[in-house]
Amino acid sequence: MLVEELLFKPKHGLVDQSLHSRMGVETTNGDGFGLGWYGQGGGPGVYHGVAPAWGDDNLRELASHIESPMFLAHVRATTGTAIQQTNCHPFRHGKWLFVHNGVVQGFDLMRRELMLAVAPELFANVKGSTDSEVLFHLALTFGLERDPVGALELAIGLVEATAVKHGIENAIQASLGVTDGERMWAFRYSTEHKSRTLFVSAEADAVHALYPENENLRRFRDEDRIVVSEPLADLEGVWHEIPESTVLIVQPGADEQRPFRPHYEGAIANGSPVGSSSPSL
Amino acid sequence: MLVEELLFKPKHGLVDQSLHSRMGVETTNGDGFGLGWYGQGGGPGVYHGVAPAWGDDNLRELASHIESPMFLAHVRATTGTAIQQTNCHPFRHGKWLFVHNGVVQGFDLMRRELMLAVAPELFANVKGSTDSEVLFHLALTFGLERDPVGALELAIGLVEATAVKHGIENAIQASLGVTDGERMWAFRYSTEHKSRTLFVSAEADAVHALYPENENLRRFRDEDRIVVSEPLADLEGVWHEIPESTVLIVQPGADEQRPFRPHYEGAIANGSPVGSSSPSL
Amino acid sequence: MLVEELLFKPKHGLVDQSLHSRMGVETTNGDGFGLGWYGQGGGPGVYHGVAPAWGDDNLRELASHIESPMFLAHVRATTGTAIQQTNCHPFRHGKWLFVHNGVVQGFDLMRRELMLAVAPELFANVKGSTDSEVLFHLALTFGLERDPVGALELAIGLVEATAVKHGIENAIQASLGVTDGERMWAFRYSTEHKSRTLFVSAEADAVHALYPENENLRRFRDEDRIVVSEPLADLEGVWHEIPESTVLIVQPGADEQRPFRPHYEGAIANGSPVGSSSPSL
Amino acid sequence: MLVEELLFKPKHGLVDQSLHSRMGVETTNGDGFGLGWYGQGGGPGVYHGVAPAWGDDNLRELASHIESPMFLAHVRATTGTAIQQTNCHPFRHGKWLFVHNGVVQGFDLMRRELMLAVAPELFANVKGSTDSEVLFHLALTFGLERDPVGALELAIGLVEATAVKHGIENAIQASLGVTDGERMWAFRYSTEHKSRTLFVSAEADAVHALYPENENLRRFRDEDRIVVSEPLADLEGVWHEIPESTVLIVQPGADEQRPFRPHYEGAIANGSPVGSSSPSL
Repeated sequence: MLVEELLFKPKHGLVDQSLHSRMGVETTNGDGFGLGWYGQGGGPGVYHGVAPAWGDDNLRELASHIESPMFLAHVRATTGTAIQQTNCHPFRHGKWLFVHNGVVQGFDLMRRELMLAVAPELFANVKGSTDSEVLFHLALTFGLERDPVGALELAIGLVEATAVKHGIENAIQASLGVTDGERMWAFRYSTEHKSRTLFVSAEADAVHALYPENENLRRFRDEDRIVVSEPLADLEGVWHEIPESTVLIVQPGADEQRPFRPHYEGAIANGSPVGSSSPSL
Repeated sequence: MLVEELLFKPKHGLVDQSLHSRMGVETTNGDGFGLGWYGQGGGPGVYHGVAPAWGDDNLRELASHIESPMFLAHVRATTGTAIQQTNCHPFRHGKWLFVHNGVVQGFDLMRRELMLAVAPELFANVKGSTDSEVLFHLALTFGLERDPVGALELAIGLVEATAVKHGIENAIQASLGVTDGERMWAFRYSTEHKSRTLFVSAEADAVHALYPENENLRRFRDEDRIVVSEPLADLEGVWHEIPESTVLIVQPGADEQRPFRPHYEGAIANGSPVGSSSPSL
Repeated sequence: MLVEELLFKPKHGLVDQSLHSRMGVETTNGDGFGLGWYGQGGGPGVYHGVAPAWGDDNLRELASHIESPMFLAHVRATTGTAIQQTNCHPFRHGKWLFVHNGVVQGFDLMRRELMLAVAPELFANVKGSTDSEVLFHLALTFGLERDPVGALELAIGLVEATAVKHGIENAIQASLGVTDGERMWAFRYSTEHKSRTLFVSAEADAVHALYPENENLRRFRDEDRIVVSEPLADLEGVWHEIPESTVLIVQPGADEQRPFRPHYEGAIANGSPVGSSSPSL
Repeated sequence: MLVEELLFKPKHGLVDQSLHSRMGVETTNGDGFGLGWYGQGGGPGVYHGVAPAWGDDNLRELASHIESPMFLAHVRATTGTAIQQTNCHPFRHGKWLFVHNGVVQGFDLMRRELMLAVAPELFANVKGSTDSEVLFHLALTFGLERDPVGALELAIGLVEATAVKHGIENAIQASLGVTDGERMWAFRYSTEHKSRTLFVSAEADAVHALYPENENLRRFRDEDRIVVSEPLADLEGVWHEIPESTVLIVQPGADEQRPFRPHYEGAIANGSPVGSSSPSL
């Protein structure tokens, strides 16, 4: 599928959302954007821009000339960190891509401790200054490549435990997308259990049955899934909300939905996570 | 006065308007911005950026380190032309600066004819692709430097006459700011006589009398005037709306307000304006 | 072939040339770049950047994730016009792409006349301010899509005739690349007949015979051709210089090489080319 | 003095050096630039650009419209870190500015340790990913604001000691400029004692005596000093080389020149500098 089918063509596609989001915390997401895709060449490609998505001619070109069975896109509204390519999602490590819609509260206070908890051999890979990139590298530290759900439960658990120590409330808002090109994990979570919206499209045959006349939906195939912060168009029955504190795993065959329960029992000492709960250290 | 006093500090200052305008046709003005000022060095300085004003660190730096008795600032919402510095206002010619909030309808259809009407010796100075820059060079062609009001009456009159020929309705929306560093001309005009808002601040002593306790307003001096598309803060009595089809001339001594009546009686032939109504050709 | 095979991997690939050209008039070509390719999606895709090619992470990503049987790339050293995407090559019209390495002397003096000679219906497509984009639109005006060689002979002929009128010597330097995705026309020409270098790679079997051990050259196939301003690597016998005042047509089957003889016999009056030599007007 | 007098007007001014440096390790310094100055408004202003200095219209505008008795400018050739504003010099802390021409070898290997040695309360101020910004924050940690020479001796000493631990040779090349707006410290140092060039202009009366006819030099006043990596013009007697391993202090009254001897005796343990040699911890 050409990337533009989802980014540009739908009425409330991501590029429209960059200009006026209807459900987001920020109505304008004009502080850069990113696209990561699997296609030609080795591993995922990544395109990061610092201009608003709505005005970037190159994004429009790429979206209409790149086909991909799996891609992640992100529009950014900064919570204070610099508008620069190294702060744009998706972040990449090997064949993995990661996007984060949300925020770590009080990140400036915790940045040093959280970066120290990143595996030393990964430290130099943190190129930007966002909370999201540090969260990704914490998850990599805790074994994202072996067990994405377990690793993110520890990574977010560590953020929450560190926040408690600092007296920071509601530590994290985290709608997350993670993929290795084969499967995609979509997390909806927040410390306060009032998470930002996250939707997944219904199965293709259900969609076709609901809207037999709709041309756009006809090219939707059996295993296709779209995960979005807000629906791309107002079509009754097409969008299922992912529940609070849940991870959806989109994969070949039946998808899977599980509770997502961050936790961290290790000691937090001298800026280094220790203990049996962090298997990869 | 430091430029930031008007751009960044007021609650609804221009930078806030770039993110969410309350009265503008576009709620987001994130397609670049510009600042022109008179201060150190010869002639006005100009800073043009293609990023949204709200996220440009350099603009913040300049605004807090440049003092100027006269400056123009502009945030842009493109009506289709490229987001590039040569399309950012203010446009400059010698000591003159020009900003335009508005649009020329059907400009693509008329672009060739209007550019041909620009004086040949000015043609190569048109560096960008906006309607606004062409309008400025038409005004220069018609004698802006001698008689700004007369020149803009002819320039806009020519645009309107050309539009009529093409069957284009409501040819122009034009809130304009023009200055030579000494005086400023603020025009509120549209072909349909439903012009975008334009306000001027009251005289300093009136402002002081209305708000004797207000610290921010105290540094406002006798000859200071602020002209804005929408008020910088909600203060009863401080902002006077400039009437429809009117030009306000802010100058040393008493300001002046006059009707603004575009007209064009010259022939429009072979793309070249001719006849006695265009005194500078 | 992945685009990076030619842009990044060769020792003196185009990205290396952006930093230190060995044969170019300018040693640094850091004023933007562009890539146009035929692949997925309809028509050619275009990526334009204003940063130096050597430092653009997105270009590296695209080059390693886009495959194309036909592409054009260009690094720019401005001769004075703005560094902005609309001034970056390749320029595109429908399925056609166009790059120009060279300059039109005295373009500022001739810009108005040359733009007037562009077909009125194409005028609004000229988005930037370069000599190259105007040259492309002149060629389109003269029938580039039917007869590229004939159209460019007229377009360059018109430029030269206009220059003579203005007393401008050595009107044009023009190494040009034009393609419709199937065939590519490579022109080497200059008014003074001292044109910038232009090379084409030898036929694949000749290349393989010369360097039987060279891994990089082995993937080179029968119909593959590379046209470059300067050789990508120092390999004796691999690069043939395209002669002065010549157009090379790279196409399925045998390539073709022809003399290129710009001429313009039409009247140049009122800014409009007229006469039987411009068949498309 | 207008900033352009030094940046743009001299034959080999900094902007010319960005395109072709004659003495630098890199001949092209096109990976961004920065200007920091003391003038209107509180504290120093900073302008950072990611485009090459030679092509940035805004830099030209600012240089011709900002006057300053003290400023620092820098053109960048990245040694691998991202081209982004947060990586551009000068770095700023309160009223202090800092520029670094040079490199920390093996910085990726040491980045974590060196960042841990930054005072925790300063950690979140490190916004970019360069060696230079970390070096500046180490110097701030060691008391730059009280004793610039002592603090940089410790900061560089720590870098060198850390490098020894990692088996990295020739740890640092560091031509440094530091100022608080009143005085400027210019350091020429490298671990291998083969430092990049650094020059200071002679005293004004010596300059005037040498070149009584030179108009440009006449406006040079008694206390004016220019410190540069390479001379701005070829004028015999005007430029004095700052010796190896030396700091020059430009200040009101007589300037001062002292040996510069980095050292670090503290323990390097758990990534934290400890011991009596780091007075500010």
